Amino acid sequence: MSIFTKIISGEIPSYKVAENDEFIAFLDINPNAKGHTLCVPKQEINKIFDMDKSLYTCLMEFSYDVAQAIEKAVPCKRVGVAVVGLEVPHVHVHLIPLQDMDDMRFQRKASLTPEEFEETAKQIAANL
Amino acid sequence: MSIFTKIISGEIPSYKVAENDEFIAFLDINPNAKGHTLCVPKQEINKIFDMDKSLYTCLMEFSYDVAQAIEKAVPCKRVGVAVVGLEVPHVHVHLIPLQDMDDMRFQRKASLTPEEFEETAKQIAANL
Repeated sequence: MSIFTKIISGEIPSYKVAENDEFIAFLDINPNAKGHTLCVPKQEINKIFDMDKSLYTCLMEFSYDVAQAIEKAVPCKRVGVAVVGLEVPHVHVHLIPLQDMDDMRFQRKASLTPEEFEETAKQIAANL
Repeated sequence: MSIFTKIISGEIPSYKVAENDEFIAFLDINPNAKGHTLCVPKQEINKIFDMDKSLYTCLMEFSYDVAQAIEKAVPCKRVGVAVVGLEVPHVHVHLIPLQDMDDMRFQRKASLTPEEFEETAKQIAANL
C-alpha cells in the first residue's frame, strides 16, 4: 500500500486541497516551494502513462483546476508541472509555484510550519 | 515570435516526431536524455494554465500519445513530464525518458549526433 493510499484512507494525515470520487490533491509535505501540491488518483497506479487515457485526461483536468486555484492563492511567476514517480510508485502530478528554475529541480526545499501548511491549503481550497 | 513558432513554420529545422492541426512534437535539441521530446501548441501561448481548458486537455492527450510512443522506442524506466516555461514563453510539455532523478533536473545533458537525433525521432514517430 503506497503512502498516498494511506493519505487517501486517512491513515496518514495531510493538508488537503481538493477531493472528488477519483482524485485527491494535498500539499507536498517536503515542498520545493510554498503551495507545492500533489494531484493523485485514488486508484493506486504506478506509472502515469499506464493509466487509461480517459482516467489520465480526467487527472489532468483535475490538475488544471487545482493549478488555477494555486495561481490565485500563492504569489508566483507561474505554476510548473512535474510527473516523475521514481520514488513513490503511485501516480502524482506535482504542481509547483515557480519563481525560478531551481523550484523545479527537487533539490532546494522550502520549510513551512504546520500553521503555514494549514493556511496555504485553506487558501488554495478557497479558490476552487 | 518564439523559437518554437519558427520551428512550427519551418524557419528553424527540427527533428519532428508528430504533428496535427493544433500541436507539434519534436526532439529537444539540448536534451536531458535521449528521446527528450517537446509537445507544443501551434498557437503561441505563454503559460500552460492560461490555455483554455479544452485546448489544454487536447495538448495533454496529444502528449499522452507521444509518451506512449517514446516508451516503446526508447529504453527507460518511465517517461517523466515537466512543464516549466521560464525560458521560452511558448507552452511546451517536456516528455523525458527517465533512468534516474537527475534526468528531471535540467542540469545533466545528453549529447547526441545529428544522426542519433534523426534516428531517435524516426523511431518514436514509427510507434505513433
